[in-house]
Amino acid sequence: MTHLVALAGGIGAARFLRGLARAVDPSSLTVVANTGDDLRLHGLHVSPDLDTITYTLGGGVHPDQGWGRADECLTVATELRERYGQPGWFTLGDRDIATHLVRSRILSEGGTLTQATRVIAAAWDLPFTLLPMTDGAVATRIRTVDGRVLHFQQWWVGEQAGPDVAEVWLEGAEAARPAPGVLEALHTADAVILCPSNPIVSIGTILAIPGIRDALRPVPVVGVSPIVGGAVVRGMADRLLPAAGSEVSAVAVARRYDDFLDGWVIDEKDATLAEEVEGLGLRVAVADTIMRSPEIAENVARVALDMVLR
Amino acid sequence: MTHLVALAGGIGAARFLRGLARAVDPSSLTVVANTGDDLRLHGLHVSPDLDTITYTLGGGVHPDQGWGRADECLTVATELRERYGQPGWFTLGDRDIATHLVRSRILSEGGTLTQATRVIAAAWDLPFTLLPMTDGAVATRIRTVDGRVLHFQQWWVGEQAGPDVAEVWLEGAEAARPAPGVLEALHTADAVILCPSNPIVSIGTILAIPGIRDALRPVPVVGVSPIVGGAVVRGMADRLLPAAGSEVSAVAVARRYDDFLDGWVIDEKDATLAEEVEGLGLRVAVADTIMRSPEIAENVARVALDMVLR
Repeated sequence: MTHLVALAGGIGAARFLRGLARAVDPSSLTVVANTGDDLRLHGLHVSPDLDTITYTLGGGVHPDQGWGRADECLTVATELRERYGQPGWFTLGDRDIATHLVRSRILSEGGTLTQATRVIAAAWDLPFTLLPMTDGAVATRIRTVDGRVLHFQQWWVGEQAGPDVAEVWLEGAEAARPAPGVLEALHTADAVILCPSNPIVSIGTILAIPGIRDALRPVPVVGVSPIVGGAVVRGMADRLLPAAGSEVSAVAVARRYDDFLDGWVIDEKDATLAEEVEGLGLRVAVADTIMRSPEIAENVARVALDMVLR
Repeated sequence: MTHLVALAGGIGAARFLRGLARAVDPSSLTVVANTGDDLRLHGLHVSPDLDTITYTLGGGVHPDQGWGRADECLTVATELRERYGQPGWFTLGDRDIATHLVRSRILSEGGTLTQATRVIAAAWDLPFTLLPMTDGAVATRIRTVDGRVLHFQQWWVGEQAGPDVAEVWLEGAEAARPAPGVLEALHTADAVILCPSNPIVSIGTILAIPGIRDALRPVPVVGVSPIVGGAVVRGMADRLLPAAGSEVSAVAVARRYDDFLDGWVIDEKDATLAEEVEGLGLRVAVADTIMRSPEIAENVARVALDMVLR
């Protein structure tokens, strides 16, 4: 059996994973998700990327948004804001709150995020093993050009990515350890797949957990570019790459991984960049990478795996 | 200004307090509420009596139930039960959950129940000071005749008061202290009013907090009987009084308080018991005590206070 590990952020990763789970036997797949975006809201532990993956694969995601629950209600959020004057910059839906209550109760009883994630994933019948990148307390921080330090979500959701970014880092990374099972999965993996996720605040934060980047070097690693035609498909990587000294291009993202990357899938729109990617010493494949359907995502997954598992 | 303290349980107390707040200047009133029924559900700190009082006085209570919120939704509870298989024996409505989130967040940040209660009461513009009886960890326990020990709510809500009761006690009472402000309010009170609340699991638990019963002895104390015609108006005192060695009667309840009680309001249906109450050395008043409206409750409050503040 082929053992695979996928490193994943939120929406783009979730849509890709829907295809990957069709392309391979998902029971041999371990998905390691970014938790740098996690935040406490109203005393609840919210894990946006874990939940986006869970809801998408479990069939409960809001189809247009790509995050949050379908058929969602906002009774609790409205009451918190209007009755109790609580901050409303990050709205939690009622169905979503049930997930956060389950997770937060497990944590408050001394359980780990790994354990909470297992319970939640089981409730959604996830076909693969979903792990947080770490059980440790980490937080993606943004320093704006005017010198303020914000939680990533405050910048992205609260300030709608308005302020220009001077620096991004994962607070708590040095002291954090990979969650139980992460290094074990990497050590036994036949291949690792980087989902088309933000290279700074999704894949970058996972790589910031000590031990993970080193564990990737001996394994065949293939990735799907989150940058298409010099622009982001989703999210805000175009706002963050320059702050990290990279251009906004499929090649520049690959270069950030060049100490461990073996193959790189770029979009058809970027076909002319193939040679430049090969110049980095990488295998390259070209595909339609806009995940409009699980079938398209499945094709991307097959193209990616073909480069390293042939 | 006349300083008053009311000791209160849930629904009966809340409806009486609606009248008391009309009969007196509520800004000089301190209400001390039972917290023995408090419980943790889904990681949330739920305070049924504090919330029933708050919602009733704040105009947000479910009018027929007498507890919980009007126009309530059950999206979170349904999700917790059906998606996550969480216990559903005690249903929390969505609007209600907002209150528990505010309280639980304050507690998780190191705040006290007194502080959380102040924040919640302010959001509802309560006209009086509402205090929990204690900030300590206490729980009303029921030992059933078949030897099981249950949280009060498990017996009352979970098992619908089915099993016969051998014993009731407030776990943690010995180590608990009155919440800040409780003894101060009692020491400066011109009179104390016992709301028509359960003598075992509402008033009884408040009296079990060390220092409160002693503080009542020097103060004029008047109460409203929760027993009418030998039966409970609401709740389950008829199931608990026998286990505590008392009959189910307005006289028997007064007798439980005879070390500090000065006046006792009984219902018109119990007018024939007036002499027996006087035989306990108490002043007695007869009134319509079924709180069908704030006006009726106001009359009961005036009748009660007239006995001790004339």
